[in-house]
Amino acid sequence: MKSYRKELWFEVKKRRQLINITGQVEACVGESAVKEGLCLVNAMHISASVFINDDESGLHHDFEVWLEKLAPEKPWSQYRHNGSEDNADAHLKRQIMGREVVVAITGGKLDFGPWEQIFYGEFDGRRAKRVLIKVIGE
Amino acid sequence: MKSYRKELWFEVKKRRQLINITGQVEACVGESAVKEGLCLVNAMHISASVFINDDESGLHHDFEVWLEKLAPEKPWSQYRHNGSEDNADAHLKRQIMGREVVVAITGGKLDFGPWEQIFYGEFDGRRAKRVLIKVIGE
Amino acid sequence: MKSYRKELWFEVKKRRQLINITGQVEACVGESAVKEGLCLVNAMHISASVFINDDESGLHHDFEVWLEKLAPEKPWSQYRHNGSEDNADAHLKRQIMGREVVVAITGGKLDFGPWEQIFYGEFDGRRAKRVLIKVIGE
Repeated sequence: MKSYRKELWFEVKKRRQLINITGQVEACVGESAVKEGLCLVNAMHISASVFINDDESGLHHDFEVWLEKLAPEKPWSQYRHNGSEDNADAHLKRQIMGREVVVAITGGKLDFGPWEQIFYGEFDGRRAKRVLIKVIGE
Repeated sequence: MKSYRKELWFEVKKRRQLINITGQVEACVGESAVKEGLCLVNAMHISASVFINDDESGLHHDFEVWLEKLAPEKPWSQYRHNGSEDNADAHLKRQIMGREVVVAITGGKLDFGPWEQIFYGEFDGRRAKRVLIKVIGE
Repeated sequence: MKSYRKELWFEVKKRRQLINITGQVEACVGESAVKEGLCLVNAMHISASVFINDDESGLHHDFEVWLEKLAPEKPWSQYRHNGSEDNADAHLKRQIMGREVVVAITGGKLDFGPWEQIFYGEFDGRRAKRVLIKVIGE
């Protein structure tokens, strides 16, 4: 069994942003030399997300509006977590969007449907944060 | 290490429907001949879901009502994604329900609790769509 | 390839509670003797969750309030699932919080960011319920 590990680092200038990381994950799968296996991609921080959806700017706007409706950032005082912090909403948003994806590797490539793209979802940016890529297989 | 891959195809006649695919996934695990490992089951389309919950028709009705409350289909114009498309709500619903499940394989079988059943959740049907089953182990 | 399996049992006295199980999962990874691999941790019951977030009591209070807003327990009669049962809300809450996490194992340890902690989320307690830990790797 082969295994492979890599961290991707992000320092998003805004509080919230969605970043397509599909190409970077594909490059890791290539480096891993795994032909058949599984690729785990997870946020290493609890106010961020890794998820798979469409790379369409209208939809990304809809996600922003929708997440703000379901788990609004403000007023900060509505959350007990927001004593010295202000990011409780980011912890909630990440539960809806998810921490991780597991993607099949087949023939040395991410085994994807036609529109699947992997995103890093930052919900509390303006600091350095990481995504972990772990590949196992043969 | 063994690996196994299969696609399940669906063409749901309605816009939204939940389909129990546990039997089909079990059959794949049998075909894979893997005794100890992991089974990934994921929607290959970004307006559909694979999730584990109860096979109870009342609950499935509750999911429909609840998802329509959290991410309503209409009015279509409320979503920027809905320019030439009308399925933004399906992309949101799938984030709540999830893209994938990873199930342990023990003794050659899905290692499940008493009521766990795997569902394909279609949120934008009336077209051919796929689920991927990938098994790795020994 | 090595594999390892263990069940954790819980009997939560309240209807809802979040329990940090990181130490128990770490002990399992140690017992498994897997140095590089994947660790699946999933609820075996469909009204409970396993998720990764912050171990901060204010945030846990916020989760309780937020989940009650998105998927309120009462009135029980609002859910068709609640004929002989009263736990439809628990099935919905678990979809938001998720069934499972998959964690990378690197160097024989859970490969975590600085604040990641694994929780068992009970949404319909007062009965014996289980979490499954399955490790594969080398």
